[in-house]
Amino acid sequence: MANQQIKITLPDGNSREYPFGITGQEIAESISSGLARVALSITVNGEIWDLNRSITENATIAINTWDSEDGQYTFWHSSAHLLAEAVQELYPEAKFGIGPPIETGFYYDIDFGDTQITQDDLVTIEKKILEVARKKNTFERKEISKTEALSFYKEAGNEYKVDLIEGLEDGGITFYTQGSFTDLCRGPHIPNTGVVKAVKLTNLAGAYWRGDVNSKQLTRIYGVSFPKQKMLDEYLHQVEEAKRRDHRKLGKELGIYMIDKMVGSGLPMWLPKGTTLRRTLEAFLRDEQLKRGYEEVITPHIGNLELYRTSGHYPYYQDSQYNPIQVDDEEYMLKPMNCPHHHRIYSSQMRSYRDLPLRLAEFGSVYRYEQSGELSGLSRVRGFTQDDAHIYCTHDQLKDEIKSTVELTQVVFKTFGMPVDIRLSFRDDNDSKYGGSTEYWDRAQREIQEVADEMELEYFIAPGEASFYGPKIDFIIRDAIGRKWQLGTVQVDYVMPERFDLTYIGSDNEKHRPVIIHRAPFGSMERFTSILIEHFAGNFPLWLSPEQIRVLSISDDQNEYARKCASKLEEIGCRVTVDERSEQIGSKIRDAETAKIPYMLIIGAKEMGSGTISVRKHRKGDIGTLEFSEFLSHINSEIVNKTLPED
Amino acid sequence: MANQQIKITLPDGNSREYPFGITGQEIAESISSGLARVALSITVNGEIWDLNRSITENATIAINTWDSEDGQYTFWHSSAHLLAEAVQELYPEAKFGIGPPIETGFYYDIDFGDTQITQDDLVTIEKKILEVARKKNTFERKEISKTEALSFYKEAGNEYKVDLIEGLEDGGITFYTQGSFTDLCRGPHIPNTGVVKAVKLTNLAGAYWRGDVNSKQLTRIYGVSFPKQKMLDEYLHQVEEAKRRDHRKLGKELGIYMIDKMVGSGLPMWLPKGTTLRRTLEAFLRDEQLKRGYEEVITPHIGNLELYRTSGHYPYYQDSQYNPIQVDDEEYMLKPMNCPHHHRIYSSQMRSYRDLPLRLAEFGSVYRYEQSGELSGLSRVRGFTQDDAHIYCTHDQLKDEIKSTVELTQVVFKTFGMPVDIRLSFRDDNDSKYGGSTEYWDRAQREIQEVADEMELEYFIAPGEASFYGPKIDFIIRDAIGRKWQLGTVQVDYVMPERFDLTYIGSDNEKHRPVIIHRAPFGSMERFTSILIEHFAGNFPLWLSPEQIRVLSISDDQNEYARKCASKLEEIGCRVTVDERSEQIGSKIRDAETAKIPYMLIIGAKEMGSGTISVRKHRKGDIGTLEFSEFLSHINSEIVNKTLPED
Repeated sequence: MANQQIKITLPDGNSREYPFGITGQEIAESISSGLARVALSITVNGEIWDLNRSITENATIAINTWDSEDGQYTFWHSSAHLLAEAVQELYPEAKFGIGPPIETGFYYDIDFGDTQITQDDLVTIEKKILEVARKKNTFERKEISKTEALSFYKEAGNEYKVDLIEGLEDGGITFYTQGSFTDLCRGPHIPNTGVVKAVKLTNLAGAYWRGDVNSKQLTRIYGVSFPKQKMLDEYLHQVEEAKRRDHRKLGKELGIYMIDKMVGSGLPMWLPKGTTLRRTLEAFLRDEQLKRGYEEVITPHIGNLELYRTSGHYPYYQDSQYNPIQVDDEEYMLKPMNCPHHHRIYSSQMRSYRDLPLRLAEFGSVYRYEQSGELSGLSRVRGFTQDDAHIYCTHDQLKDEIKSTVELTQVVFKTFGMPVDIRLSFRDDNDSKYGGSTEYWDRAQREIQEVADEMELEYFIAPGEASFYGPKIDFIIRDAIGRKWQLGTVQVDYVMPERFDLTYIGSDNEKHRPVIIHRAPFGSMERFTSILIEHFAGNFPLWLSPEQIRVLSISDDQNEYARKCASKLEEIGCRVTVDERSEQIGSKIRDAETAKIPYMLIIGAKEMGSGTISVRKHRKGDIGTLEFSEFLSHINSEIVNKTLPED
Repeated sequence: MANQQIKITLPDGNSREYPFGITGQEIAESISSGLARVALSITVNGEIWDLNRSITENATIAINTWDSEDGQYTFWHSSAHLLAEAVQELYPEAKFGIGPPIETGFYYDIDFGDTQITQDDLVTIEKKILEVARKKNTFERKEISKTEALSFYKEAGNEYKVDLIEGLEDGGITFYTQGSFTDLCRGPHIPNTGVVKAVKLTNLAGAYWRGDVNSKQLTRIYGVSFPKQKMLDEYLHQVEEAKRRDHRKLGKELGIYMIDKMVGSGLPMWLPKGTTLRRTLEAFLRDEQLKRGYEEVITPHIGNLELYRTSGHYPYYQDSQYNPIQVDDEEYMLKPMNCPHHHRIYSSQMRSYRDLPLRLAEFGSVYRYEQSGELSGLSRVRGFTQDDAHIYCTHDQLKDEIKSTVELTQVVFKTFGMPVDIRLSFRDDNDSKYGGSTEYWDRAQREIQEVADEMELEYFIAPGEASFYGPKIDFIIRDAIGRKWQLGTVQVDYVMPERFDLTYIGSDNEKHRPVIIHRAPFGSMERFTSILIEHFAGNFPLWLSPEQIRVLSISDDQNEYARKCASKLEEIGCRVTVDERSEQIGSKIRDAETAKIPYMLIIGAKEMGSGTISVRKHRKGDIGTLEFSEFLSHINSEIVNKTLPED
């Protein structure tokens, strides 16, 4: 065995032979010394490992650096141990519960006995963490028997770890030690503590042991750490910005939406300004779709359960659906998706190859059950409207249609100034869960990649990320403060044409199965609006602003003239209001600034006399006195070009 | 008693004193001899009576002529007796079941023994009806004891009438006799048979006695009758026209909508052309609403049951609602109306008198349960979208807001060339069911009538037709073939502001209740579209046509030029297609005619050479060769002016 070679497959699909027992660290060094320097862990056949663990079979691997989710997971896991080490040094009596990495950062639940930990203490602990990190201690992994593990923690008087170990099976229990701290831990960890250069303990909370209110309440310390101070600074800035831009706060202030307990949890109601915003978004997309040959339909918000039995979404996804409604001797359900309705429109008449592609679009409202604790503003809701479409085409038309949907999606995100990362989610060749023939899958995956190449997209391939139905393209946008959001999937579907027995008559006069593309650039109007609010911090581009222009009269004498100006703007389709309250002009300007109105027209005696207008731009202040026609052509070009607001 | 006077209140609200025991005929004569000649029956305190019955107490009455529903009811009821008399003369063995008037006409269920009645026999019966009608026999009413009634029919061997009489209480049983025919009947009837001048037996069907499939099947003869032959001719023409225009037939042919059993009964899906039509209607109304200060909102399609418990619609109207859906420990319902959602938006913030009127509009989809036997095309459905709005205003603003809603409704129906009758539905002063103070009701009714007078509307007042909530205005439109449809109610509501505890802060700094106006000019997008299809027989005005222009190439050589012409038209917002199939031009024109496309542009070598276009208008044929710009300005004015199609 010892002389045997094993086959290691790298993320790019290439594979190399390595000696049996090679470690991640050694593989990284064999690739480049740069990679070896920043490597944090290795993912081996989907499981994250320490870099110094021996690999003893053929494997698909990825070397994880800070830039990967698996790398960050390892980094934050080790940071939790550093937090514990620092606490142990400062509070020798502290007893530790659990300390996992989370989506961003980590926490540790700690029993401080009678000691009350305050925000000030967190600063001391942060300093201690960096102090112990600088020692560049390695994380030592050690397999240990259940008996030994129990006696270790019984001796230390830590009933929490004892409790945990009692639930474990003997064999496979491991301890990790760095510096003075040893922890019961499955791993993996980073090579040494020295890479943790910046840490912030972000929050203190109470947490019952094992989430049981009858157990002791421990102190949970949340933290986040980075390999560079600059990254932490940026992160903290992003957190501050995200708070300032929170769509739940801005959505209320700007009159976009409301949620009312009496109407229902997770069921937003779009207020007048939000409705204008949404209608403007819909019109924008409808227009782009019309240009690309889509046809719009409207289908009901419920469907007979037979639809979902046929699609397989019932009872399979029952947990995320509303309960059925009995009607006479039938059962109906709030529709969790629009697909089956569209498929039935497709099959309502005989289709010929000449009728394809058929592109059915709908702003379709769907309802899905979410646990009430998961609900949040417009971003996690129970009722939402998808900018849905289904393209029914032949296999020969698939590539062009994918190209067209990708192009449309690109146009959409470009319009909002959102950079996009593209993930091609393909099948896992070792998995047999997929529907449709391998031949079609191969062709579609090849064509998807060809499209991506021809369009010169920046993309990465994610094998195994495809859904059961077919391969897909995911768009991951970055917003103004650098956060990533997955939006606008383009999904190829070989399964539903079978299930709904969809056919077309080919040029050979025979029946064939069409293929379906599902796509929704915005995803949902609700979630996309929440992202837009935060992306723009409520300072929407002029074309999208619910209230585009506010005309402010300096005194009552100018009210009539102000209304006249507003009428002229309304005539050309602007959304304009007049502030003719008897308030000081300064206070009117302040209110318009707060309401984030892109333009203010100030009308005083001077303007009225000369027939000009004095223009203020939101966040920019006075931009001078203009002829009315000048202003019109200025805003007209800004609206037509969908100009993005300057920062 | 005999010398006592009684007070008779006429429909216009005036009352007169008449001697105790006066008859309807005598009252009619006291009003005018013309009225007396055409009087058919009298409605006394809501019940229809024979004209020769004595009135022995104070009463609100209406003399019913052919022009009233009650008059037609009487006329058709008597016609059913004439049908029976004619059948009895032709088939002495026939035994009669029941023979009521229906919405249009009447029927009689008859046991013809072994005789099979055919369509030809109906013609013979029709002639006999007119023959006996011409005898001008009066209808004689006679009270009869149960014993006598039973022995009469037992002797005649008519087990059906025996069955009916056995279910009646003694006292109050009446027989009516005209000519040779006597019938068990509560009445009322017309003074004499001579007014029945035209009759058509329209249908033959089987009908089980008492609707019980285990009972004997009788022959049901349907008929309709009129006081003038011309009316019958018009009616038969209307029936033919209605068949030709049936929206269920045209809706399918024109690709407006479909209903699919697998999706659900009564749940129409709007096909691409129907969706374009609907979006165009919505845009038209949205635009008109925007001009009048409405603000649009979007609310979810379900609501917590608490909303409907508060409004009183649950459990009170449970029979016409879908069953509730359990979600965690709450119950939700498909919303049967949008009102409660809007009320909650109203009350989500403090409102000042300066914020009113607040006009919240929504194209809101609602769901109501209808028995499956009641469902029909787009006109009787279970899911539909209301062009709903709620106006929240002060009592002082009510009159102006009513005026504005009436004006909007008028504009809407005028646009479609539909004449409107207006009914002011007021309270019944003798009924105490109404909500809100009498003072407010009186003021609102007075103001509604003032609005109607100031706008010089043709209206009639219907006391007792108001709903519980408040007085209302009903619009009864007449379509192109003279049928009447009630649409676009404007409803004042004093009750919901109480139930939802809606308030505003007045100029006196005190809390007040606003008043609400509910209004929906179209009523529902589905039903209105069904009426539009039939009103226009599918020949929609240009602005509303889903496909406005079709460009037809004479040969393949002109396909590219045809596409260019289409692009130019698309640029100015026209909905245009190109027929570039390799078909004869005659066949392309026929297809475009069948599809009811308003304009066809014929592109041949000649047109291509000269840069002109040859234009055909739907149902009119060739309208000559035009410069492209000429055609553009022609259709532009037709679209902007919403010109109605010529007949």
